[in-house]
Amino acid sequence: QTCFFELAGVLPPELAIAAIKDTIERTYAKRGPIVVERNFAAVDGALAALHEVEPGAVGDREQLRSWISVEAPTFVRAVTAPLLAGRGDELPVSALPADGTFPIGTAQYEKRGLADEIPIWDPSICIDCAKCALVCPHAAIRMKVYEPGALVGAPEGFKSKEWRGRDLPGMLLTIQVAPDDCTGCGICVDVCPARSKEVAKHKSLDSEPKAPHLERERAGWDFFLGLPELDRSLVEPATIKGSQLLEPLFEFSGACSGCGETPYLKLLTQLFGDRMLVANATGCSSIFGGNLPTTPWKANASGRGPAWSNSLFEDNAEFGLGMRVALDHQAAQARTLVTELAPDLAPEILGADSFDEVGIAAQRVRVEALKERLAASDDPRAARLLDLADTLVRKSVWIVGGDGWAYDIGFGGLDHVLASGRDVNVLVLDTEVYSNTGGQASKATPRGAVAKFAAAGKRTAKKDLGLIASSYGHVYVAQIALGADNAHAVKAIAEAEAYPGPSLVLAYSHCIAHGIEMEFGMTHQKEAVDSAYWPLYRYDPRSEQPFQLDSRPPKIPLAAFTAKEARFAMLGRTHPEEAALLAEESQRDVDERWRLYEQMATIAHTLEEQA
Amino acid sequence: QTCFFELAGVLPPELAIAAIKDTIERTYAKRGPIVVERNFAAVDGALAALHEVEPGAVGDREQLRSWISVEAPTFVRAVTAPLLAGRGDELPVSALPADGTFPIGTAQYEKRGLADEIPIWDPSICIDCAKCALVCPHAAIRMKVYEPGALVGAPEGFKSKEWRGRDLPGMLLTIQVAPDDCTGCGICVDVCPARSKEVAKHKSLDSEPKAPHLERERAGWDFFLGLPELDRSLVEPATIKGSQLLEPLFEFSGACSGCGETPYLKLLTQLFGDRMLVANATGCSSIFGGNLPTTPWKANASGRGPAWSNSLFEDNAEFGLGMRVALDHQAAQARTLVTELAPDLAPEILGADSFDEVGIAAQRVRVEALKERLAASDDPRAARLLDLADTLVRKSVWIVGGDGWAYDIGFGGLDHVLASGRDVNVLVLDTEVYSNTGGQASKATPRGAVAKFAAAGKRTAKKDLGLIASSYGHVYVAQIALGADNAHAVKAIAEAEAYPGPSLVLAYSHCIAHGIEMEFGMTHQKEAVDSAYWPLYRYDPRSEQPFQLDSRPPKIPLAAFTAKEARFAMLGRTHPEEAALLAEESQRDVDERWRLYEQMATIAHTLEEQA
Repeated sequence: QTCFFELAGVLPPELAIAAIKDTIERTYAKRGPIVVERNFAAVDGALAALHEVEPGAVGDREQLRSWISVEAPTFVRAVTAPLLAGRGDELPVSALPADGTFPIGTAQYEKRGLADEIPIWDPSICIDCAKCALVCPHAAIRMKVYEPGALVGAPEGFKSKEWRGRDLPGMLLTIQVAPDDCTGCGICVDVCPARSKEVAKHKSLDSEPKAPHLERERAGWDFFLGLPELDRSLVEPATIKGSQLLEPLFEFSGACSGCGETPYLKLLTQLFGDRMLVANATGCSSIFGGNLPTTPWKANASGRGPAWSNSLFEDNAEFGLGMRVALDHQAAQARTLVTELAPDLAPEILGADSFDEVGIAAQRVRVEALKERLAASDDPRAARLLDLADTLVRKSVWIVGGDGWAYDIGFGGLDHVLASGRDVNVLVLDTEVYSNTGGQASKATPRGAVAKFAAAGKRTAKKDLGLIASSYGHVYVAQIALGADNAHAVKAIAEAEAYPGPSLVLAYSHCIAHGIEMEFGMTHQKEAVDSAYWPLYRYDPRSEQPFQLDSRPPKIPLAAFTAKEARFAMLGRTHPEEAALLAEESQRDVDERWRLYEQMATIAHTLEEQA
Repeated sequence: QTCFFELAGVLPPELAIAAIKDTIERTYAKRGPIVVERNFAAVDGALAALHEVEPGAVGDREQLRSWISVEAPTFVRAVTAPLLAGRGDELPVSALPADGTFPIGTAQYEKRGLADEIPIWDPSICIDCAKCALVCPHAAIRMKVYEPGALVGAPEGFKSKEWRGRDLPGMLLTIQVAPDDCTGCGICVDVCPARSKEVAKHKSLDSEPKAPHLERERAGWDFFLGLPELDRSLVEPATIKGSQLLEPLFEFSGACSGCGETPYLKLLTQLFGDRMLVANATGCSSIFGGNLPTTPWKANASGRGPAWSNSLFEDNAEFGLGMRVALDHQAAQARTLVTELAPDLAPEILGADSFDEVGIAAQRVRVEALKERLAASDDPRAARLLDLADTLVRKSVWIVGGDGWAYDIGFGGLDHVLASGRDVNVLVLDTEVYSNTGGQASKATPRGAVAKFAAAGKRTAKKDLGLIASSYGHVYVAQIALGADNAHAVKAIAEAEAYPGPSLVLAYSHCIAHGIEMEFGMTHQKEAVDSAYWPLYRYDPRSEQPFQLDSRPPKIPLAAFTAKEARFAMLGRTHPEEAALLAEESQRDVDERWRLYEQMATIAHTLEEQA
């Protein structure tokens, strides 16, 4: 805009620039002087960088195409690449699939190369904690554990170290960054706990300028991808390390740098991705989950991956329930047919325990044997059972969305689905605001936060969705925050999935809409928990004492948490008196909720001997 | 059907009758032998009563018309009467209002005369408790307190007694039945606590055959209507007696005989009817509330009454919220205009306390004075303020519906409206099933009850809507049962209305869908509370200890309550083992909820000095 006025001559440029700066002042004053100064700097910087460009010299988009490897699938080279290069209008209609089907796992070809700095791994001080891989919003930092022999042919500078875990003795560990997919958010560096004793401020992961490392890391990433994936039966998935040794099937999405939502989704795909179905509500996760021409959702080498679909804001829970009902009917039909067509295999197949990776792997072997036999059969029912046989391996249905969906627009349906008692898992990526549409208040928005429709600070307290769901008594509920307690988050997600009824997981998701330093998003989540703003808990209907508080009483005042967020701080500048009042009420909200939760944690189920 | 087969000769009659009885046997066996026998008796009775009728001798519907007094409004005589007589097709289109407006208060002309027996009052043993008038589902039994001089011209046999209350000394009381509107449900007789010490089983209200009493009671009712209504400022509305001295503005609806919903609505109109707006969800209450050609909703002698409207199942809460928002905007505009146009009257009008009948009456006087002045003004803003002036008297917005609306289809919106913090009052007439559409299960249906979509007994527990609403912390919530504790119900409704934020009242409503003896519906409500199936409580956000349990710990086992309801009992006949299991789980539901509520009742708000 600044350059337009400099060149177009519709106004004297100095008048136009002054008017722009005046508008900036008026618009952003409430966000503080730093924001105003940064905007002024952008205006001045744009003018300073204004220079003439020769026609034909603009080739950045074209460059994208050259990044696509000649080994990429034909469709990617023929269709995805021109689309990414901004030349989709040159494609003939016949190049597009007649049924609208696009291949999956294609975000890997959209090398955005956003980072100026990337994390560089120092294996000498690494403690194998796996936190970096766990928190990476873009699955751009990964770890593999492998036999030393797999290093044959490794490129120069490829790093590895001995794996300390006793579970997999004698193996090596590599932590590898994908330098063209990393957005440089810095979250992995922030959470890395391994500090050098010799070099001040040096961690096992440090951010460094990308350029000097780029070629080595690119070669490293390519080699890393070729290292074998670990057999799923060898790891304990419900742990931080175990989960990060599993292949993610959600990679390189177009989410914001430092996104607080995507690590949860990536984790789901590591834990259940090869047998999961996802009903995804509209919102950020539907946009970065399925944005033409690429998608971050993918399958593993054997072609297994999540079945993902996006539905309307208002019916996503019901949409996922439909997946469950359909699966249950198909499985029931399959069980009948197995008994009829393969009575010798039936006892083992129908009695299988599919609640751990060993059991699931064993069931897959049985089902493959069944399918081989069916393929050779001329019984007309065999073809039907062949279609249905995969439902004999336990499927995992996940209903996913943000707070705008779960607390507001889709809540009526979510409530109905939870009440149904069916075995579905709900993951709420709670950013406490309609992030994707520009920051409108939802019922998850806390008291005192500024949002659209709540410009003077929201007056009512955040809705307690977890408490509401737990009032049914048959819903597994967990409130988690990956940045505050990694192990708790992983464990709760695994418990939710294993619970044979409806489960609801409320996942704290830091967000650019909060006005925080995104680099420290995970550390900030810890402050949310330490202030009891976001208590961690699990409600397991099977337990004698169903409600369990998993975090500790408030260690810091709420203000220590809210002061770091512009959504709260800006109210202090625009409405100081109301901000003070709302802050006081908000502290009371926190105290009262904590007290209620403590009481609930003392209430045990009525035991039969007591009744 | 039986007579059709007897006469039509399409089958040998004895074959047809046997087939009908066989179907009855198969259909109703699960409801028990008594139901089957009653159906057989109906078949046999119909055949026994079969006789030939001369053409022209059928005049029952025509008779309706003759009941309409010549003093009835022209529209009623010209339009309503022919419609009631089944002769609406004879009306010219021009007889119907061009804008669709029908007059209100017209159910009074639809004399259904259903009762074979009606309650007869014995003033000599009456204790003035007012329970009979409170519980009457059809407003067909009323009480008035008046000066002795008003008895001049009373018809022979018109009964009265001295009013015992010290509040209105020297006045007389009459309890009067409307014999043509009474449906003979017997509920008033069941709840009457005044027993004779001399005559066994004689109460102050006894059911007696209608015929011998009809003329006297008709004359009595006509005279009773002419007795003056008491000045509202003279009574304490939030009490049983006080409320029943106020005029009901909801009379003689077409609800089922013994309906458990209508007494709550009638009570609302007595307490707030002259200044209330009702958003009525679809369901029984929308059907009996506005069924062409008549409506039970009416205005008082000064033309004031509820503004009532029915909206969709899925948006009724929002519909009511819209009424509130509109009223608030109108009142804000009116307040501004008062300050501008009548600065001398403004302090009193704008500072008025409208939270009791005395305050409301005083404010009405002030507003009338203002309106008189405005009518004489030629300021162009005066006409606008004249339009808006009535909003300066506090209005009461009620959002009303059944459990199908509140727990299910309209829940998403209800939740949103409660979260908004706006001053609306929600009354849920909870029959625990979709009564109007034939008994489908809702999320309010309890575990173990048989309903459509839950033919083998509902497997999940009843949703705890009150607990859900109380989780907001700013919603007044009350759970009431008129038959269990009259005074509590009246008090909670008055508190809900006075609370300056959202209120939710869950009102236990016995229903024919429960398969109970409707005559004892109110007594049965007591068993619901005594077994802690339906605990009474109030959650008042303003209290230091917001949650208050108002009923006592379980006195009787749940089975003592459920055994009296066919919805539970029939499962024992069709699925005895599951019935036993569900009954056990249901008892556990009750025990656990009671324990939770007891705990909640100990949790006080965080006081500032503690914080």
